[in-house]
Amino acid sequence: MRASSLLINTTRERPAEAELTSHALMLRAGMLRQLASGIFSWLPLGLRTVRRIEQIVREEMNRAGAAEIMMPAVQPAELWQESGRWQIYGPELLRLEDRHGRAYCVGPTHEEVVTDIARACVRSWRQLPCNLYQIQTKFRDEVRPRFGVMRSREFVMKDAYSFDADAAGAKRSYQIMRDAYVRIFDRIGLDYRVVEADVGAIGGSFSEEFLALADCGEAVIGYTDGDYATNLEQVPCSPPAAAQRPDPGEKMEEFATPGVATIDELDQFVGGIDPGRSIKTMIVTGEAGSAALILPGNAELSLAKASRLEQVGFGAALAEDDFVRKTVGAGFGSLGPVGMSLPVIADASLASAADFFCGANRDGYHLRGVNFGRDLPEPRFADLRMAVAGEVAPDGRPLKLRRGIEVGQIFNLGTKYSQAMAARIEGDDNVLRPMVMGCYGIGITRIVAAAIEQFNDEAGIVFPESIAPFIVAVLPLGKSPEVMQAAESLYAALNESGIDCLLEDRGLRAGAAFADLDLLGIPHRLVVSERSLAAGKVEHKARHTGAVSMLEMADAPAQVRAMLAAKKP
Amino acid sequence: MRASSLLINTTRERPAEAELTSHALMLRAGMLRQLASGIFSWLPLGLRTVRRIEQIVREEMNRAGAAEIMMPAVQPAELWQESGRWQIYGPELLRLEDRHGRAYCVGPTHEEVVTDIARACVRSWRQLPCNLYQIQTKFRDEVRPRFGVMRSREFVMKDAYSFDADAAGAKRSYQIMRDAYVRIFDRIGLDYRVVEADVGAIGGSFSEEFLALADCGEAVIGYTDGDYATNLEQVPCSPPAAAQRPDPGEKMEEFATPGVATIDELDQFVGGIDPGRSIKTMIVTGEAGSAALILPGNAELSLAKASRLEQVGFGAALAEDDFVRKTVGAGFGSLGPVGMSLPVIADASLASAADFFCGANRDGYHLRGVNFGRDLPEPRFADLRMAVAGEVAPDGRPLKLRRGIEVGQIFNLGTKYSQAMAARIEGDDNVLRPMVMGCYGIGITRIVAAAIEQFNDEAGIVFPESIAPFIVAVLPLGKSPEVMQAAESLYAALNESGIDCLLEDRGLRAGAAFADLDLLGIPHRLVVSERSLAAGKVEHKARHTGAVSMLEMADAPAQVRAMLAAKKP
Repeated sequence: MRASSLLINTTRERPAEAELTSHALMLRAGMLRQLASGIFSWLPLGLRTVRRIEQIVREEMNRAGAAEIMMPAVQPAELWQESGRWQIYGPELLRLEDRHGRAYCVGPTHEEVVTDIARACVRSWRQLPCNLYQIQTKFRDEVRPRFGVMRSREFVMKDAYSFDADAAGAKRSYQIMRDAYVRIFDRIGLDYRVVEADVGAIGGSFSEEFLALADCGEAVIGYTDGDYATNLEQVPCSPPAAAQRPDPGEKMEEFATPGVATIDELDQFVGGIDPGRSIKTMIVTGEAGSAALILPGNAELSLAKASRLEQVGFGAALAEDDFVRKTVGAGFGSLGPVGMSLPVIADASLASAADFFCGANRDGYHLRGVNFGRDLPEPRFADLRMAVAGEVAPDGRPLKLRRGIEVGQIFNLGTKYSQAMAARIEGDDNVLRPMVMGCYGIGITRIVAAAIEQFNDEAGIVFPESIAPFIVAVLPLGKSPEVMQAAESLYAALNESGIDCLLEDRGLRAGAAFADLDLLGIPHRLVVSERSLAAGKVEHKARHTGAVSMLEMADAPAQVRAMLAAKKP
Repeated sequence: MRASSLLINTTRERPAEAELTSHALMLRAGMLRQLASGIFSWLPLGLRTVRRIEQIVREEMNRAGAAEIMMPAVQPAELWQESGRWQIYGPELLRLEDRHGRAYCVGPTHEEVVTDIARACVRSWRQLPCNLYQIQTKFRDEVRPRFGVMRSREFVMKDAYSFDADAAGAKRSYQIMRDAYVRIFDRIGLDYRVVEADVGAIGGSFSEEFLALADCGEAVIGYTDGDYATNLEQVPCSPPAAAQRPDPGEKMEEFATPGVATIDELDQFVGGIDPGRSIKTMIVTGEAGSAALILPGNAELSLAKASRLEQVGFGAALAEDDFVRKTVGAGFGSLGPVGMSLPVIADASLASAADFFCGANRDGYHLRGVNFGRDLPEPRFADLRMAVAGEVAPDGRPLKLRRGIEVGQIFNLGTKYSQAMAARIEGDDNVLRPMVMGCYGIGITRIVAAAIEQFNDEAGIVFPESIAPFIVAVLPLGKSPEVMQAAESLYAALNESGIDCLLEDRGLRAGAAFADLDLLGIPHRLVVSERSLAAGKVEHKARHTGAVSMLEMADAPAQVRAMLAAKKP
C-alpha cells in the first residue's frame, strides 16, 4: 500500500500520558488513538499488525481442528443468571438495559453464550470433541485502565471453548490447545513462559498462563533453574521447619499507638520488633464469606491462595472499609485476631510464633505479648503468603522471580458451566452427563504491546517479520521521474511476489523518511536514489541489525524473498 | 475442513419463528443461532460466508485506496453531544453508563469517532483525500427486530468515511466508492439496483442505496424502462394538471360518525365519496417541529418528503397518540385541518379540491362540504405523497415498482460533521475550512440473507461460488477403507490447489448426506463410492444446475478448477 493513503502520523516526542515504552511507541508511530479511558481506535498501521496476529492465531486454531464462530458482543442477563455469574461478577461487567428495559451486558467473556450454543447444537457424543473459537471485541470495565492496550477496557480477544464427553477427552483437548498456543507464540516470536496459574473469575480446576517476559509485566513468575515455573501467586511456600512454639513469656497488654497504621510504623514506634513477632491482619471477602487472615508483618498475601480457603472462596479481595469498620469496629491500621468475630486463619509460617504484636481492633491501639491458645483460640493454619526470591521451590531449587505480560491463558473448566446450564449429552450407556469443557484465551491486541516491549530500540519499534505491518518499505529519494518509476516497479514486483510492501510516497526529506521507517519498525528498507539507480542497484537496510547492502535492482525481490525464507524454522 | 468439526446441525422442518425464506434456510442449515431478540451467533458454516463477503469487500476497498482501521464499539457520549446526535438519535441508540457513571453508547455508526480521528490526524491538505473504513460490529436497538439477520439489532457492517479538502474532491471520492460498490456487488453476484435515497439519520446532501431485488424487501424502488430508479419515498410526484378549483358548492357541516376511524370506513358510512373529496390528516413530528399534513384519502404519506418540510425537519415520524390528543383534542381517526392549531400543509394533488370530507377534530365526528379559503385558511401545498405505479415518472415514462433489500448506502455528507466537530484543514490560502466528508456503508451480515433470498430452491440454498462456505464438498459413501482413503486424497489435492473444500466425514447415510449438502448450498459435490472408485472415477454434481457427470479421479481437481475459472468474468 501507499504511505500517502495510510494516514501516517508520527511524532518525535514521547507522549506524556504513556507510562510504558510500548504505549509511547505505538502513539508515536500513530498505530492507535485513544477515544476514551481504556478505549482505543486502531489506525491503519496498527491494525495491520493486529490482523497479522489474528491470521497466525486463526491458522493455528484451524490446524488444531477448532471451528471459527462469531458470538454477539451484547449478551442477555438471563444466561449470566443461569450460570450464577450475574451476581458474582463485579463492576467489571458492563451492564445495560435495552429500550424495553431488559438487562444485558457487553460481553467480557463468552462461556455462557457458547454453553448455550453447545446445549442446543450438540446432540450426540459423535459430535464430540468440539472446539469453537472466535476473534472478537470484548469489554471489561477496569477500574483503572492504563498502559494503553495493555490494560484497556475494550480489546480484541481470541476465545476458544472445547466440549468433551469425559474428563479424559477434555484433557486431550486441553493439550491440543496448549500445543497450538506454543506454535502461535513461537511463530510470533515472543520470548514467553508457560506457567501454572490461578483460575480466577473463569473458574475450573486447572489453568496455565502464557506470559511474555517483560519488566513492565503485571504478572510475576516464580521459576527455578529446573523446569519449575508458576505464577508467583500460586507458588506453594514450603512448610516451615517443624519448630517447637515457645511458651508464652509475656503478658498480653494493650498500648496506645497514635498515628500507627502500618507494620513499618509499628516497628518504628516500638523501636524494633523481631521479624516474626509482628503480625498483620487482613480481612478478605470472597464468594463463600469473609475471614481475618494473619501473616508475618513482612509477608505479602496471595489473594489466589485466599480464594482457595473454604471460608473465603472464589474472588477473594480485601474487604471494603465500611464492612471492616462495621464488623470489627476499627480501621485497617488497627486490626488483630484477638476477639475477632470472623474466622481467623493464620499463615503456616506463624505456627511457632509467640509473644507477638498485633492490632487491638481499636483505632490507635495495638497489643503486645499475644499468644495463640491463651489470648485467642488456636487458629487454623494455611499457606497464605506470596513466596519470595531465594526460598526453596517445590522442585528443591531456589526460587527466582521474573515479570511477564499475560498474553494467553488456558483453563480446564470441568463441568462448572455445563452443569449449571444443563449442557448434557447421552453417553453409550444412555445416561445424560454434563459435557466437560475447557476454555482458551489469547489477548490479540495486548500481544501488539507485549511484542513492542520486547522488540524496540532507541529509534523505535523493531517488529519481527511475523507481525510487522509491512515486510518491506520502498523509499524513492528525490523527485526524479526515473527514481519514482523504478520505485513503483520495485513496489509492484514485491507485491506480486507475495511480500507485503509499503511504498513511501509522501515525498518526505530523506532524514524524516528514514526516521519514520525506523520508528514504524518495518523489517526491510529498500532505498531507490538517482545514484543507486545509475548503478542499477537499490540500497537494502535490515531494521533488526542495521546492516546495509546494495542489491541488484532486478534481483531485489528475489533477494528479499531469500532473506525471509532464511529466517523460517 | 472436516464436517465432523463444524458442529453442523441441519433440520428438515421450517422453523415456526422464521417469516422469510432466507431466515428459515439459515436456521435449517445451522448457519446461525438466535441468542436474544435480534441478536445472533454465527455458527461455523454461516461465519464462513460472512468472512467471504468481508474478504471481497476488503479487497475492493483496498483497491479503491481506502485504509482499514478499527474503531471501538463503545463510544463516549461527549462526541455525540458535540455532533448534536446524542439528543436527536432516538431509542435506537443503546445508551449505557460505565462504573463511574459516565455515559456511553454501543455505536450504531461511527461518524463522530472517525471525525474525531480526522481532526487529530489530518494536519495538511497533502494528506487528502483520505478514506478510512472498518468492518465492525454495530448495534441498533430496533423496536421490532425481525426477519433474522435482515433486521437484527447487532450486525456486522463495513463503514467507510472519506475526507476531502473541497466539494469537488468529495464528489470524486463518492464516485470512487460508488464504483467500488458496483464491483463488490457484481463480484458477489447479487441482482441489485442503485437508486437515489433519503439521507435519513446520517444526513448530508445526496445519497444512493444499493438494493438487492427481492419480494420480501422493505424498500420499494420506483423505476422506469429508462434509466430512472429511485427509492419510492423519494420519487417526486408530477404536479397535477393545472385545474381550476371549483367554487364551494356545499355548506360545511359536522355529522356524527360513530366508530369511523379510517377513510374506508368513512366511505362506507357515507355511502361512497368521490376520490379526491375525502382527505386524511396526519400529524407528524420532526427535528424542527410538528405539522398537520393533509392528503387524498387514497394516498400514502412519504415520511422522507415530510422530513424535507421546514416546519417538520429531519426524522419525521407520526406523532405519538398522547401528543395528538393533547394538541388537537381528538384521536387519529377524527383529525382534520379545520381549526387546527398546527401548521397545515396539503399535498399538491389537493390544490383543486373542494367540498371535501375530513375529520372534525372531535372524536366520532366528521365534516363535509369543507373548502380551502372559506372554512380554513388557504394551506401551503407541497409534494407529500408516495408515487404510485403507472403515474408519470420524472423521465416521462410510466413508473414501475419493485421491492428490494438495502445492502449498501453511500452518502455525500458535506460538512455536517466536520463543521460541528471542527475537523478543519488549512488550504493553499492559509484559511481553515471544514473537510468535506462522505460515508459509505455495506450491511455485511444482511448480504448473507439477501443472497439467500435470491439464490435458493426447494432443496435449500444455492450459494454462488463467490460466497459459498465451501466451493466443493467431497463425500465418501460407504465405509470401505479404500473409499475413505481416496476421498481423503481428493480432499487434500483440492485444498492444495487452493479450492476451499469440505470433507463430509460424518458417516451419514447417502440420502441424509445428499440432503444436507443440497441444503447448505455448496456449489460442487464430488461423491466417491466403491463403484466409482473401481472405474477410477468420481461423481460430480453441480448444485446450481443439478447436472451430474463422472470425472477421472486423478483429474478431478483440475476439472473443478476449470469449471470455476469458466465462471469468472
